[in-house]
Amino acid sequence: MLKYEILSKQGKARRGILHTAHGDVNTPAFMPVGTVGTVKAMKPETVAATGAEILLGNTYHLMLRPGAERVAAFGGLHKFMNWPKPILTDSGGFQVMSLAGLRKITEEGVTFQSHLSGEKFFLSPERSMEIQYLLDSNITMAFDECVKLPAPHKKVAESMRRSMRWAKRSKDAFKDREGYGLFGIMQGGVFQDLREESAKELVKIGFDGYAIGGLAVGEGQEKMFEVLDYAPTYLPEDKPRYLMGVGRPSDIVGAVARGVDMMDCVMPSRSGRTGQAFTSEGVLNIRNACHQDSHEPLDKECTCDACTKYTRGYLHHLFHAGEILGSMLLTEHNIHFYENLMQQMRTALEQGTFDQFYSNFKEKYKDERKF
Amino acid sequence: MLKYEILSKQGKARRGILHTAHGDVNTPAFMPVGTVGTVKAMKPETVAATGAEILLGNTYHLMLRPGAERVAAFGGLHKFMNWPKPILTDSGGFQVMSLAGLRKITEEGVTFQSHLSGEKFFLSPERSMEIQYLLDSNITMAFDECVKLPAPHKKVAESMRRSMRWAKRSKDAFKDREGYGLFGIMQGGVFQDLREESAKELVKIGFDGYAIGGLAVGEGQEKMFEVLDYAPTYLPEDKPRYLMGVGRPSDIVGAVARGVDMMDCVMPSRSGRTGQAFTSEGVLNIRNACHQDSHEPLDKECTCDACTKYTRGYLHHLFHAGEILGSMLLTEHNIHFYENLMQQMRTALEQGTFDQFYSNFKEKYKDERKF
Repeated sequence: MLKYEILSKQGKARRGILHTAHGDVNTPAFMPVGTVGTVKAMKPETVAATGAEILLGNTYHLMLRPGAERVAAFGGLHKFMNWPKPILTDSGGFQVMSLAGLRKITEEGVTFQSHLSGEKFFLSPERSMEIQYLLDSNITMAFDECVKLPAPHKKVAESMRRSMRWAKRSKDAFKDREGYGLFGIMQGGVFQDLREESAKELVKIGFDGYAIGGLAVGEGQEKMFEVLDYAPTYLPEDKPRYLMGVGRPSDIVGAVARGVDMMDCVMPSRSGRTGQAFTSEGVLNIRNACHQDSHEPLDKECTCDACTKYTRGYLHHLFHAGEILGSMLLTEHNIHFYENLMQQMRTALEQGTFDQFYSNFKEKYKDERKF
Repeated sequence: MLKYEILSKQGKARRGILHTAHGDVNTPAFMPVGTVGTVKAMKPETVAATGAEILLGNTYHLMLRPGAERVAAFGGLHKFMNWPKPILTDSGGFQVMSLAGLRKITEEGVTFQSHLSGEKFFLSPERSMEIQYLLDSNITMAFDECVKLPAPHKKVAESMRRSMRWAKRSKDAFKDREGYGLFGIMQGGVFQDLREESAKELVKIGFDGYAIGGLAVGEGQEKMFEVLDYAPTYLPEDKPRYLMGVGRPSDIVGAVARGVDMMDCVMPSRSGRTGQAFTSEGVLNIRNACHQDSHEPLDKECTCDACTKYTRGYLHHLFHAGEILGSMLLTEHNIHFYENLMQQMRTALEQGTFDQFYSNFKEKYKDERKF
């Protein structure tokens, strides 16, 4: 059972607070991804210092290594990884489809081979609920199936309906506790009728929050925003809405404007490790030669360690020398950039200036600007 | 010009303070190695928090990338890497011999190929002094030649005598300033007569401190301690003595007992990145299966982040998952372990209990114990 409060609204955008057993999450919220029990290249206290209030952990990765029962023996994922704040775990469904070898899907669940060891595993709604319980996840995600897009209406409909049956089984298997909750996942691809049908099924079952799944899988921002123009409106006003696996800064701001409250993405951390930085003016690649002799900070407007203590020239040097500190600093900056963006949106929503924020952002920030 | 004060002595061991333009260094001191302008996998403020008061930078690596003139344009190495405390740089001589391709050594200096690009470079006493000046190093090392051991007396003698001529040229080329100094390097391999001759030559030239070079190159601890039983006694009492490239914890404690004040080694950082940890009871490899389910800290007696916030089981998991955080935490622990060892020795020397510390250490600590 999770309590969600909406503090203010502007247009479709919402400013809220989600109360969990491990603390509050102010929304709109971005969740850094801590795949196997660590946000790559960052200490958890550094993650918290960026303003992040909740992390995402991956059921698929953690069940393979170190194993859910082992994490439980260490007192759950919060204790294991030294992150005392809220944790959301995905259900494993998405990664089983994208990473595992030799899958066999039946109505019962999915048998698959570990991409690490080749060992056989089984996931079902019931096992996914059990794993997420063992991890002590504050927000458990219903087990779902994800089809690759583009796919025909018939195939997307069949898959969505199976996901809805699995959502019901997830709900039945979930052990409810105060400060812990279960989110259902809406599917239906880019078909409005299927999105509506999926939402109705989920609301009938009843969840603590509702995710929009099956987007950010290559359909492009325009198509995604088309879906987001209607999909959130099918969901209850008083529950949090989570857009899974999104995205670039402009995706995130656009999703919030369309009524989304929570998001996660590996982009800031993964990009950071390869030398790509998000700045207030757009994206830059610190490996580029133009930064070699630059005494400028990565982003003049940023207050993170990477921007206040180092020059672009030094960061460029770290990446060319293959130094771990380069990955550490750029990851920290990128997560800080994302969390700061969320804070700016929360403040704008509190002050009733979100429209202005959104139009300023669209004018200034270019996802595609590379230098 | 560097001021060195000796605060107390016990046997041959000394407790001192070296005053530099960037702050004081309490001795005996261990210098973590920051090869190309970063202690690998650590933020500089984390390095400082371990108790480290001085870092070592590598002239050879920095001259190749990013280049000494470039570091100077960024205001020197302290500013470039965000380390406001003292820095010692080696002369480049040792790495030219061990890393560079196609060397040609003449009386004038060494022409060599970069191991990174194949580009040709030249190092001489004069160029080494210039580079270390550009880096803004607080302690500049004289340019020397290092022969591989074992080598016959004649070859070691010839090389040592060339190093002494280069030491004189280093002194002549060094730009003296308040709070900056130049150290000479004693050579002579494991031959007592050559060590004595080398020391006399250096003292005649006159330096701010004296290094013992050409050890820790595979001769073994016993042979090294034999040399350290006499070598420091040839050096002035009132100047700091620096044993280059040493070593394991037992090497370090043994060297301090023999009158050494400063040391550096890549061992704590390099070992940390591969999963090897130094603990109060000896060495352990966190990758070993026996740690997988351990809820114990890495070292019960340690106060570092890795030991107070995580279990061995979690650290084991990070290394098996190939996570950067594993390297970050074990490096931090190892540097903390080394710096804490130095602090214990300094305290024992202040309290006149060094003999007791040394015998306790020898009884409890095993370099070879692996678990």
